[in-house]
Order: sequence, then structure tokens, then C-alpha cells
Amino acid sequence: MMLGGLNEIGKNLAVIEYENDILVVDCGLGFPDEEMLGVDLVIPDTTYLEKNYEKVRGIFLTHGHEDHIGAIPYVLRKLDVPVYGTRLTLGIIENKLLEHQLPFQPELNCVSAGETVKAGCFSVEFIRVNHSIADACCLAIKTPVGTILHTGDFKLDLTPIEGEIMNLTRLGQLGEEGVLLLMCESTNAERPGYTPSEKKVGRSLDSIFLLNQDKRIVIATFSSNVHRVQQIIDTSAQHGRKVAITGRSMLNIVEAATRLGYMTVPSGLLIDISEVRKYPANQLTIITTGSQGEPMSALYRMAFRSHDKIQLGSEDLVVISASAIPGNEKMVDKIINELLKNGADVFKDDAVEVHVSGHACQEEIKLMMALTKPKYVMPIHGEFKHLNANKKNAMFMGIPESNIFISDLGKVLEIGTDGARFNGTVPAGKVLVDGYGVGDIGNIVLRDRRHLSQDGLLVVVASVDLGYRMLMSGPDIVSRGFVYVREAEELMDQAKDIARKAIEDCFEHNINERTEIKSSVKNALSKFIFQQTGRKPMILPIIMDI
Amino acid sequence: MMLGGLNEIGKNLAVIEYENDILVVDCGLGFPDEEMLGVDLVIPDTTYLEKNYEKVRGIFLTHGHEDHIGAIPYVLRKLDVPVYGTRLTLGIIENKLLEHQLPFQPELNCVSAGETVKAGCFSVEFIRVNHSIADACCLAIKTPVGTILHTGDFKLDLTPIEGEIMNLTRLGQLGEEGVLLLMCESTNAERPGYTPSEKKVGRSLDSIFLLNQDKRIVIATFSSNVHRVQQIIDTSAQHGRKVAITGRSMLNIVEAATRLGYMTVPSGLLIDISEVRKYPANQLTIITTGSQGEPMSALYRMAFRSHDKIQLGSEDLVVISASAIPGNEKMVDKIINELLKNGADVFKDDAVEVHVSGHACQEEIKLMMALTKPKYVMPIHGEFKHLNANKKNAMFMGIPESNIFISDLGKVLEIGTDGARFNGTVPAGKVLVDGYGVGDIGNIVLRDRRHLSQDGLLVVVASVDLGYRMLMSGPDIVSRGFVYVREAEELMDQAKDIARKAIEDCFEHNINERTEIKSSVKNALSKFIFQQTGRKPMILPIIMDI
Repeated sequence: MMLGGLNEIGKNLAVIEYENDILVVDCGLGFPDEEMLGVDLVIPDTTYLEKNYEKVRGIFLTHGHEDHIGAIPYVLRKLDVPVYGTRLTLGIIENKLLEHQLPFQPELNCVSAGETVKAGCFSVEFIRVNHSIADACCLAIKTPVGTILHTGDFKLDLTPIEGEIMNLTRLGQLGEEGVLLLMCESTNAERPGYTPSEKKVGRSLDSIFLLNQDKRIVIATFSSNVHRVQQIIDTSAQHGRKVAITGRSMLNIVEAATRLGYMTVPSGLLIDISEVRKYPANQLTIITTGSQGEPMSALYRMAFRSHDKIQLGSEDLVVISASAIPGNEKMVDKIINELLKNGADVFKDDAVEVHVSGHACQEEIKLMMALTKPKYVMPIHGEFKHLNANKKNAMFMGIPESNIFISDLGKVLEIGTDGARFNGTVPAGKVLVDGYGVGDIGNIVLRDRRHLSQDGLLVVVASVDLGYRMLMSGPDIVSRGFVYVREAEELMDQAKDIARKAIEDCFEHNINERTEIKSSVKNALSKFIFQQTGRKPMILPIIMDI
Repeated sequence: MMLGGLNEIGKNLAVIEYENDILVVDCGLGFPDEEMLGVDLVIPDTTYLEKNYEKVRGIFLTHGHEDHIGAIPYVLRKLDVPVYGTRLTLGIIENKLLEHQLPFQPELNCVSAGETVKAGCFSVEFIRVNHSIADACCLAIKTPVGTILHTGDFKLDLTPIEGEIMNLTRLGQLGEEGVLLLMCESTNAERPGYTPSEKKVGRSLDSIFLLNQDKRIVIATFSSNVHRVQQIIDTSAQHGRKVAITGRSMLNIVEAATRLGYMTVPSGLLIDISEVRKYPANQLTIITTGSQGEPMSALYRMAFRSHDKIQLGSEDLVVISASAIPGNEKMVDKIINELLKNGADVFKDDAVEVHVSGHACQEEIKLMMALTKPKYVMPIHGEFKHLNANKKNAMFMGIPESNIFISDLGKVLEIGTDGARFNGTVPAGKVLVDGYGVGDIGNIVLRDRRHLSQDGLLVVVASVDLGYRMLMSGPDIVSRGFVYVREAEELMDQAKDIARKAIEDCFEHNINERTEIKSSVKNALSKFIFQQTGRKPMILPIIMDI
């Protein structure tokens, strides 16, 4: 079953269970949608795993992206189980755990592609795939009823920057031996054709460097895309440019990837960002974060001139080597507009090929299906439209529709020798993280935040003597996010009168229940305010009895 | 000068002034960005026009889209000046004015393409262009120092659905006579090539209808795209389908366009939406609003099964005949996912050509420049990146960079016989409309709304006797949008203690200034809450003196 990654982007988490053994594949986080005001992160609901703690044999990670590992610190806090992943994946997790300070030392087990791990009745083989982060694997999970292949995120790259091509041979062997279920990622399942090789970006960079020899070249990309960063470094070296790096996550990843051997930097090439003024523009490349337009990122600060070391202007060519994640387009455009205003040139992937996807397009998905020849297919990782498109890919490959299962969070797919079927559900959903609070933000809090965000609030305070039914002090009105009070004094005075009258009316009718007084103040004010302004601020009456 | 439409999308408004005469071209609205929580609309700041009321000779409208006419009801309320526009444009405005109830009868003057209107020292010629709404014009404004050509929104459509091709001949004649300044729209200035003809959509629709004879076909598009709706009606008639229309604005526009002669509906073809159950699916087309994923639209309600007449499911093919306006992608995807879940098929413009733009691409812009041969060019309508791209188009056509002016809101471009230059600014900006309030929402209110939306609020109330320095009642704490209080009783009790202590400390130190007490409560609580939760809710202390 899946506790994350179905009908949503991110927070991928798959659960595989047989009798007394449970395996978890990936443990990612998701980002809040626009409705979840103030929420920092979303993680999977792991109630089911907590209830079956003693059965959980481990968490197996396909690669080191946030949507596959980001919930690890939160889930480990509840479940102290072993974690298995490749070297780079674990390296990234170690950094994360330093920030989170768990009360125990979690067990992290490093596995290389090609190795197999025993876990309860299962054995899990890590198999090399290509992706937009180094050291990514898919997992072949041998169970007592057959083999499950979980693709993780993958693409086929015949000319990877570093490391091996996706292990087609081993996938083919598994297909020969028999794959019971293919859990196949669906991110690009709607896109025809093949995803281009990462090398293609290198060729584009080369021509950009050739055609812009007079410019300082500033390139923004995802910090986790180690291969992309490597290519930028290589191209800079070839063109005789020094490289400066800015942005915290970019600095971290270059440090970690170099230390772990995933990246090679010619000695003397890197310079500190504080040294850029020592070099002429045309001898410099700057690698930065901020490809998604993030307001605190180095690129944003360099564009809006709040970066302490670099301001971008007419001597710069800025290359956005990434595509905007849906929802981020406007933020990216905001930076681009500012850069252009300051006289910089800007290239992004719609005009020059400076980004390729890390996910399999339709032909690669079909290749995966052709090699593994699965009996059953479950499309995973994506909104319904992605899962549905992947179902069509499977049908195109001759898999009967009745053997393809589009599932939903918490829905249990039961597979036995007698066939496969959905059978029941377990708790699943979104756990919201806001500040230190995990799961303490629910629908009521979010509804209130939305209400407050739309029309603000009015607090009405009055002190009364409920025994004598007398208004002692007030009512006073405080407003925030509603109107600017200095310009609306008359409205506020009228509102006070309405509130006073509502309270006095209650007393005249011998009402001295606080709840009733509050609701009559609220009703009278809501009506008045809506008539006057067409707005519906939250109205919060506070009646103090003295 | 421009009071709207530069460095932004929408709220287009241009001002042309010569001595004692002012002309206004277009008067549009914009939509709030994500920062402007709770704001309904944005209109241009017209302070400059109000101050020079007696000079304003009229508002000239290029076409009937909201971003060109939407601010008319608000601006007319302040400036009772004549309005000039084509028949469809004025028809749409009349409907708007019915809702807005001005205290006077505004003067609306109907002008046909080809006609010229005198206004002060200016004369304004309306010239036919093609666009995604019928009856669109560009304006040739003769001034004492030369002719200004304002393109409005345009494209070249050699096979328009109804009406004439853009009047290339007249534009060419104007070029021969001499155009001083071309104010050229920039929406698609980044896109190479030509925008396809609206007819292309008709061909796509035809093949969709042919290939889906067993389905009910549901098509969502912009209601203002009268030609698109006409094509859907025509294709339905050819394929022997009845047409039902749902969505208020779609019903309004079909009624108005038919009445004014911009649309021809074969008699007996239209059926009421309540009659759809009488017809088999394959004999029906439904035309609907909601192509941008709007949560109250007919398409949304039909997808999420809250429409009272129609639910969409496996017998339906839904065609989204529009492209998502930047920022709306996720809302559109939400509907698509729901439709697919309910078993409907969905086509949109990335897979089949069911939408074409209404704006000129680079080659059309170059054609406009080639015909009109302007001395000066001012790119208008767009963010900086669009204006900048249009500047490059003009440079490509041989216009010297020094003759191309990328302006900004309120910046005055002065053109005389001795040349052109920026000279000073006038007030300009965004006026926010929220409910009935126009311009009463400012930065402080928006800042408070953002703060409230992120972490909610805590109201702390206490009654005190400032004279005797005694806490009389409270402190009580009410929270909204912060945590769900029933699950955080302990935190709330601690917070009350902190607040009480802060007040008592003040009294002990002989502080009896309300402002000081409030700020010490606020500081103590902020610190405590942030330590405990990592959040920064708005804290609103209310101290009542009794």
C-alpha cells in the first residue's frame, strides 16, 4: 500500500507487508498547497507503521531527493528502524539529522547498487537507475509470493555524467525470472518520447560559454543535481573561468559530493564568493541556488541587490538551468524581470536547452515494462492525471486493464497466488508541519487562517457585570487586516455603537449568558460590516465578567 | 504616459496629453497577486486624471476584455467623461454598469471600425484588428505633433471567423503618411513566428467531434471569445448535436452577442441546460465556463458533482479550449484530475490544438512595425520581460535603440519636434478593490493579513485598575488560526501565566501606562510562544482600565 505519492506530488512512501514483516520504500516530504496557509511541510501519516512497529524491518531509500527522504527525521522519531540507502543518499540524511537532533542514534546502512539486503522474509536488491541526482536505484523486492519492482524515480541516460547507465541487463533478467508487480513512477507519463541525456545540457552550456565570452556567467540550478553542477564546473574549466559558489545548500552539496567522490573539482578552480571582485567578469562563472525563484535564495538576493557580495547587472548573463515546478512560475518570472531591468541577459530552458528532466518519458516507461514484463502494474508518484497516463502506457504494452491498479493513499492492494485485488484501507493522509509542531494544525486552524487572510479581523471587548447586567467598560474595537483604522474612524465608531446596543439589548431582555451575548454582538456586527463594506472579517467578541 | 499595463499584466490605461487636452486609451482592471490577500480587483490610480478632470476629452476603448474596460465603472464614478468604443465593447460595458449603479447616466458613444472621432485637438481613428474577442480595434491618434498608433491587443488572422481581416492597407497608408509613435502590445513578444488563425481551432474541433461520436462533448472556453463559441456551435450543428450552455457569463455573452449580431445560432439548436437528460450523450455538446479552473465555475461544479443539472463521468469528453493564465495551472489541474477520476476523457491544448492565442507573435509585431514605420516605439502591455522582448523586435526592424522607450507607470514620455525624452512622473500605481471599498486597503492592512494567514493570532485580554495598579480580571487568551486549543490546553495555561506575570511585573515597577503594559505582555508572550512552537502568531494584547 502507499502512504504517500498517490494523487499528489511528493511525500512518497510505499509499504510492503507479508505476514509479520513490513518494508517501507522511501519516506519523503511534500510541500503545502495554497490552501495550507503558514504550513512549512507535509509528511505522510504513519499511524499504520507506528501500530505495527515491531513488524517494520527497515526503510529502503531509492535516492536522496526531499520528496523521497525528507520525512526521515520525523518518522525516525516515532520509529527507530534501520535505514538502507546508497552512499550519497545517506550522506544527505546525515546532514539532515544533525539539524534535527534525535534522542537516539539511528541505524543507517550503506548499500551499493548491485547489493542485496535481507529484511525479514524479504530480500531487497538495489539496481542502478539514472536520475537528476547521483547514486539513484530502483529496488527489486523478493517476497514469498513473487518479486516487486519499485522503480523509484528513474530515467534512461545512455551517456551519464558519472556512474553507470541504468542496469537494463539486470532488469531484463528479473523480467525473465518473473516480476509479479511493477510499481512504476508516473511523473512524465504524459510526455511522449525519451527524456534527453544530461550530456545535452553540457553541449548547450558549451555553446553559451562560447557565444558569451565577454560576460560573467551566472547559472542557477537545483543544488542536488550534482551532475549538472559538475558539468558547469567542467565547462568553466575548459573556458578558463574560475568558479564561485553562492547559496547555502549549493555550498553544502558541493562540499559533500566532492568529499564522497561524486564530484571532481580541478584544484584552484573554485574561488570564494568574496573574491569575485578580483577577477574580470569574463573569467568568472557563478553557480547559485534560486532556480525556483525562492525569495531568500542567493539568485533572488543578487537580482534584488540585497546580496552582500554580488549584484547582477549589464555584465552578467544569467542561465536558469531548471524548469519551474508548477506553482513557482510567477516567482521565477519576478526574478527574471528584475534581472532584465538591471541590464542582465537571461536564458532559460524555453529558448536554449539548459535543462533536462530526471524522469522517464513514455518510451522509457515502456522500456521498463518491456524488460520487466510485470504481471501487475501500479502507477505511483503523481497526481491522478499522471497515474492515469501511466495506466495507458501499461495498457499500450499489452498489460490487461484488470491487472493495472490505480490506488489511493492507504488503500491496500492484496496480491496472492490467486490474483490481486484491493482489500480495505489503513489510515493515511497529510500530517502538517508548522514550526516545531507536527500534526497540531488541523482543518479548523487552516480554515481560520484562510478567513483571517481574506478580510482580517475585528476584536470587540467589553467588561460587564453579568450579575447586575451592566456594561462596565467598552466596548472597544481593535481591528487588524480589515481597514486602516485612522481612515475609517467613523465606521469604527458606528461599529462600537452597534456592539453596545447589542449588549444592552441582551441585558434588557434579561439575557446574561456570555455565549448568547457574544453571538448577538457577532451577528449584529457582521451584518453591519457587510452592509457597509461588502466584507466579512472574522469577528471575535470578548466579554469579560467582573 | 501609462497609468497601467507596464511591468504588469492587465489594468491597461494610457494617457495622451497635448496642452489642454487629454485622451485616455483603455481603462482596464488587473487581478491581485498572491501577496494581496483578500483583494478582489486592482484598478489604476487615476489621481492625475482627477486633478486634470476638465482636460479629459474622453476614454477610448480598443476592445471589450476586462483588462481593457474593467475599471470603467470605478473611473467613471470619479470622472464623468464620454466613452468611445465599438458596439460589442459598449454592449459589455452596459451590462457592467447595470451592476454598478452610477449616480449619473454616462455618455457612451458607439464607433465603428473605419470611423474617426474628434476630441479636443486630437482625432482618433478606429482601425480593425483581429483578437480573441470580436470588434477589436487599434487607434490612430492624430496629434498636433504627429500620429500615435496604439495597437490595443491584436493578432493577424487571415481567416477570421466573422468580420474583417486586420486592416493592413490602412496601417500601411498611415505608415506612408508618417507615424510618430507606435505603442505596441507585448504579450507574445517573446514568441517567435505567427499566432495561428482561430480557424485552426475549428479544424481541431471537427476532428475531435468525428473521433468521439459516442461521447457527450463538453467544451470549456473564455466566454468573451465569441468566435470560439460560434465555432463550437457550428461544429455541433454539422455533427447533428444540440448545444446546451452553462455558466452565468457564458449565458450572458451568448445572449448579448446573438442580440448584437456577432453570433448566429441556427434555430432549435440551443436547448436549456435542464433538458440535457432528454437527449442521448452523443447528440449533445455542452459549452461552459471554467477553463481557468475557477472554483465556482460551471465546469468545476460539474466535475465535483455540485452542479444541479449535470455531472460529468465516463460518457463525457471534456475539451479545455483555453490555455491556463500563469498562476492558474494548479486550479486547472485540480479539475482535470477530478474529471479523469470520474472516468471522463480530457483534452487540452498541449495535446490537441484546441486553443490559439489572441496576441501577435514576433512576426506579426514586426509586420505592424514594417507597415507603420514608426519613428518612436513604446512597448506596452506586459511585464518587463515582455516589454524588453518587444524592444528587441523593434531593434531587429531597424529602429534605433535610442528611439525605443521602455517606460514605467506614471513616467512621462515627452515628444516634440525636437525629439523624445522621459520627463518627470505623475502619480500612478495600484488601487485595491475589496468588497465595496476602493483604495481603503493599504500596505499595513495587507501586511497584517499576511501575518495572520501564516501563524494566526492570540488575543490576550485583561481588565486592570491602572490607578490602583491591580489586575481585576483575566488575562484570558483567545486564539484563532494558531493551534487547536482543545489540544493545547497546557500551552494556553502557560501563556496565561506568562501574560499575568508580565502585567504584574509592570505594576510592581510602577508602570501604569497601557502602551507599556501591552508591549511588555506582547514581548513576553512572543518569546515564549516562539520557543515552544517555532511560530510567530500575531499577538494582540488588550488591556481594559476599569
